[in-house]
Amino acid sequence: MIVILKSNPNRDQLESLISWLQDKGITIHTSVGAAHTILGLVGDTSQLDIDLIAALDIVEDVKRIQEPYKNANRKFHPQDTVVHVGGTQVGGGTLTLMAGPCSVESEEQVVAIARAVQKSGATMLRGGAFKPRTSPYSFQGLGARGLELLKVAREETGLPIVTEIMEIGQLPLFKDVDVIQVGARNMQNFDLLKALGRQDRPVMIKRGMSATYEEWLMSAEYVMAGGNSNVILCERGIRTFETYTRNTLDLAAIPVLHRLTHLPVIVDPSHATGKAWLVDPLATAAVAGGCDGLLIEVHNDPAHAKCDGPQSLRPEAFDALTGRLLALHRFLRTQEAAE
Amino acid sequence: MIVILKSNPNRDQLESLISWLQDKGITIHTSVGAAHTILGLVGDTSQLDIDLIAALDIVEDVKRIQEPYKNANRKFHPQDTVVHVGGTQVGGGTLTLMAGPCSVESEEQVVAIARAVQKSGATMLRGGAFKPRTSPYSFQGLGARGLELLKVAREETGLPIVTEIMEIGQLPLFKDVDVIQVGARNMQNFDLLKALGRQDRPVMIKRGMSATYEEWLMSAEYVMAGGNSNVILCERGIRTFETYTRNTLDLAAIPVLHRLTHLPVIVDPSHATGKAWLVDPLATAAVAGGCDGLLIEVHNDPAHAKCDGPQSLRPEAFDALTGRLLALHRFLRTQEAAE
Amino acid sequence: MIVILKSNPNRDQLESLISWLQDKGITIHTSVGAAHTILGLVGDTSQLDIDLIAALDIVEDVKRIQEPYKNANRKFHPQDTVVHVGGTQVGGGTLTLMAGPCSVESEEQVVAIARAVQKSGATMLRGGAFKPRTSPYSFQGLGARGLELLKVAREETGLPIVTEIMEIGQLPLFKDVDVIQVGARNMQNFDLLKALGRQDRPVMIKRGMSATYEEWLMSAEYVMAGGNSNVILCERGIRTFETYTRNTLDLAAIPVLHRLTHLPVIVDPSHATGKAWLVDPLATAAVAGGCDGLLIEVHNDPAHAKCDGPQSLRPEAFDALTGRLLALHRFLRTQEAAE
Amino acid sequence: MIVILKSNPNRDQLESLISWLQDKGITIHTSVGAAHTILGLVGDTSQLDIDLIAALDIVEDVKRIQEPYKNANRKFHPQDTVVHVGGTQVGGGTLTLMAGPCSVESEEQVVAIARAVQKSGATMLRGGAFKPRTSPYSFQGLGARGLELLKVAREETGLPIVTEIMEIGQLPLFKDVDVIQVGARNMQNFDLLKALGRQDRPVMIKRGMSATYEEWLMSAEYVMAGGNSNVILCERGIRTFETYTRNTLDLAAIPVLHRLTHLPVIVDPSHATGKAWLVDPLATAAVAGGCDGLLIEVHNDPAHAKCDGPQSLRPEAFDALTGRLLALHRFLRTQEAAE
Repeated sequence: MIVILKSNPNRDQLESLISWLQDKGITIHTSVGAAHTILGLVGDTSQLDIDLIAALDIVEDVKRIQEPYKNANRKFHPQDTVVHVGGTQVGGGTLTLMAGPCSVESEEQVVAIARAVQKSGATMLRGGAFKPRTSPYSFQGLGARGLELLKVAREETGLPIVTEIMEIGQLPLFKDVDVIQVGARNMQNFDLLKALGRQDRPVMIKRGMSATYEEWLMSAEYVMAGGNSNVILCERGIRTFETYTRNTLDLAAIPVLHRLTHLPVIVDPSHATGKAWLVDPLATAAVAGGCDGLLIEVHNDPAHAKCDGPQSLRPEAFDALTGRLLALHRFLRTQEAAE
Repeated sequence: MIVILKSNPNRDQLESLISWLQDKGITIHTSVGAAHTILGLVGDTSQLDIDLIAALDIVEDVKRIQEPYKNANRKFHPQDTVVHVGGTQVGGGTLTLMAGPCSVESEEQVVAIARAVQKSGATMLRGGAFKPRTSPYSFQGLGARGLELLKVAREETGLPIVTEIMEIGQLPLFKDVDVIQVGARNMQNFDLLKALGRQDRPVMIKRGMSATYEEWLMSAEYVMAGGNSNVILCERGIRTFETYTRNTLDLAAIPVLHRLTHLPVIVDPSHATGKAWLVDPLATAAVAGGCDGLLIEVHNDPAHAKCDGPQSLRPEAFDALTGRLLALHRFLRTQEAAE
Repeated sequence: MIVILKSNPNRDQLESLISWLQDKGITIHTSVGAAHTILGLVGDTSQLDIDLIAALDIVEDVKRIQEPYKNANRKFHPQDTVVHVGGTQVGGGTLTLMAGPCSVESEEQVVAIARAVQKSGATMLRGGAFKPRTSPYSFQGLGARGLELLKVAREETGLPIVTEIMEIGQLPLFKDVDVIQVGARNMQNFDLLKALGRQDRPVMIKRGMSATYEEWLMSAEYVMAGGNSNVILCERGIRTFETYTRNTLDLAAIPVLHRLTHLPVIVDPSHATGKAWLVDPLATAAVAGGCDGLLIEVHNDPAHAKCDGPQSLRPEAFDALTGRLLALHRFLRTQEAAE
Repeated sequence: MIVILKSNPNRDQLESLISWLQDKGITIHTSVGAAHTILGLVGDTSQLDIDLIAALDIVEDVKRIQEPYKNANRKFHPQDTVVHVGGTQVGGGTLTLMAGPCSVESEEQVVAIARAVQKSGATMLRGGAFKPRTSPYSFQGLGARGLELLKVAREETGLPIVTEIMEIGQLPLFKDVDVIQVGARNMQNFDLLKALGRQDRPVMIKRGMSATYEEWLMSAEYVMAGGNSNVILCERGIRTFETYTRNTLDLAAIPVLHRLTHLPVIVDPSHATGKAWLVDPLATAAVAGGCDGLLIEVHNDPAHAKCDGPQSLRPEAFDALTGRLLALHRFLRTQEAAE
């Protein structure tokens, strides 16, 4: 961390800052210039509150050099994290395909889709029981009963399930969910993140609609600081001025996160674009960009889906897509191995 | 709502759509063009799920004409909502000044600030007990004890208190809080909004960092649909590419919301800009733009505040500012009356 | 400027960097930490190419402390710049009202509007002769003939004129235009800026749709570096995800620019919002926020304007507005004087 | 186009609107609802000025159904446009690799890089002679001499050259440039676009930093309306709140543009990200996403490049990358053919 002091800082305040920092085990390198004096802070600066220092009268600016996250930081954990889920794994060179309906509607529907996506190569079933909807008048999901139906589909197929939690009070219902999803709107629901850190189910955190990489990693850090290191990140597009697609899928997130963190990175082209015909090219691009898996909406009757129909693939389209994606993934790994 | 059909829509599907809409009491006006057939839907379209219709095979696009919110809609409630809080009110031509520390730190601190801001003309005390912080390693607020200290300050001064709730489980602690604040990060925490709709304390909803006016009003609609119509909206800046200020304060929100809704609109220049020296000009602009009140951070020792210090005013600066703001408000009202 | 070196930087490269910097008259303060070595550069760093330094193998990051603009920088020119235009001035405590039609259409139209806005208190006539239009099929303005008509209106009323240039080749036509406007889309048309720097007419630079304050000031710097210091800045909204208004007017730009630069700051609420009914509240807010003037579209027949009609005020509405704005400006100056 | 009228529209104004539209050959379908009357306009609505209609007193809102561009529209030109450049082509199933230095610095440099990238599989040489730089104090390119050096490199290698024009006055110098590039900052320099439409060199238009797909296509339409249909589009990232990368590369642009237009789509991962280590994964993702080519910066000595060094690949890295990209492109085409 670098602290840039105002010109002619008050001596007493400066000494008090320096001794406060030294008490925290920070070493300070002072560089006195004509216009500015600069303090270079060396040590574990992730514990320092940057706002607190910036607030001091004698401080002009504070700039971080070190990332404010530790548990999620690749620098301190060079090995990729592999999250084990049921008999399958996320990360570590595999391509995880999570597929299923946006919203669980009936046992028949969810079991049929689960069987179809499993046959096509999906290794995890996704489905919404509690649905975050912009309007209070829209269908809000089947709730607890939706969770039960997902478990039925799991029994029928053996596919582990991933589904979204919306608030802490629902946690008891999620005890035997395989991966608990935190939606984009809850990415900075810090109490929920803390609660998820105190239990041991894997957690998949979707990127907030206007969240930076750093804020997203800080949300992972909240879960990990509580003791749960089974965290998966899911890129789902960010909000920009472009309105043709629902959001702008940011595929640079894959290599950037792979450099900044050891956690696996999943991509959701269905929600990002909001259009079924964009799922294929963007899923393909995401695999080529190095993602650890995909989250794809599949519905056996998108025209009558209770939500988000326009972005769902039919099972046939999903089947054709996964065939190509898995072949592409093998091709890229062979290419890599050849170097 | 306007439904634009694809060319040569399947007859059966079209008839099934039309009869489904008619069952919901919607009248349909069909306009057949060379390239497109257009359905004009007339009736209470706020109950229709736009995604569901857009998902149909025969539909090319759907465009709303009517707003998707009812309770919050000025069209159906032309009169301004006035929210009564303690002996004071928000909306209805008054200028409400909510002031206090970002974070409650001690009884001494909060009582001293409450007394100071009251003397300067503040009619409500704001203060954070539960603090949403990006980092799990930053100070998270005093929690329940912070609420107690706010109540002590209320007893000492008579000022009603406004403070932020972070999750449903905290609701019992907020029973006698005067205004419950929903932070920007929780603007789409739909379960929390529903819970706040089922109780009767006034609710102030901050705009999400990347929320549109319509989404924000839909969040108000969540609370109101539950039966609680004491809702206040608070503009606090949106996230843009500009990084000099923390966020970009959107003052067009004031007149736009005053047209779209009957709910009062408060502006928070402290969080929006993140810089104390910008609070004065932007608070002044907000009053001139017609806001119903301001939320301003005041700290007796910003240099040692536990959070957000750089954006807090000292009591002296707040005092000078409120003098000018209240005079400006009177001036503008006189001007208005003269027309 | 602070240069953060990678750990164990190559000695030769480091020495070569240091001697290159010293040749440019930069003094270097080195601070050696456990993880990072930091170079603090003192001197005129605005001449240094930050990208060039960041590209070096031994460099991890470079952070600016000093602004990259000099001529436009308040630090080096503490006094406000006052731009003298015809008999009037922009900056220096006055409130300049520039008003007129989006697009010049006929002599009758522009003279009538010029007379009307002058009567209401406008001190400058704005009008478009060359119009930047998104579509090649939209009306592109009267061009050279439009300029002539503006000059006729100037003769009739004495009002100085401000109008937009679109490319260098048009410069001869702008020789006796009073203020040459650079539109948002041309804010980074660097060749045009250089050409405007080599002539002596005042230049008003609109903010680019996604330009930061710093980029905007660098555009002013381009003009000033050429020798023309009569530069005015005009905030006209930035592009965000919000689509209700055409752009998001950023009123924080006023106090921020007043701190960073000595150049006057004008606000254009008409283009920013794209809606006539938002001009009044946002013009009022801008005056309260301390702007040096306003650019407002007025049309005697908005319903038949050839472009941008929806955002134009009728002369009667403009008259009522200016009365209130000038009174507000006097009130605020009295208030200020009293302190 | 759909025109939504206000309730109880003035009869005379309505009739005048209708007859004006009919004069332009537009057929009108009227749909009278309880709250709104809707006019469905059928015919060539791309000639209608949407702002003009929206400005009418009787109009509440206007919504386009048809795209406002014709020449660039896939609907009217279903076949892919193939742009022939020297002996090579852009579009039509090939993968065009344009590579070279950000800035031309010397004959030795540009010839050496041209030879290297040609050996690696590049089919076009890119290089900057006129450089748009944010600061007037940064290196602005070699100008006319830079163009000469590019032509020398073309003679030496046979590679066609692509380079950026900055203003109309430079056009004579670009007479025998193979592809004229319009930079992001000039995407809406409409006079330049018109001038490029009146000559016959192929034009590559980079997306503006905050341009929508539609605006970008309207810029292509400007060139094409002038008679030049050899237009290439280049995605280079858009500006968002994320600051880790220079811009956010929007790969959805590839399939979206391929649906909306018949023009080829190139991707520039170097400028989009600003970091050399992100070029490889994003170039790979872009190829998988279906782009028609890539624009990649290669420099033989990035550490001493005069601009944009941090994002340039060394020839060895470029060589390894192109080998993999071309193999991937063949793999994907084989996969496609197999279906």
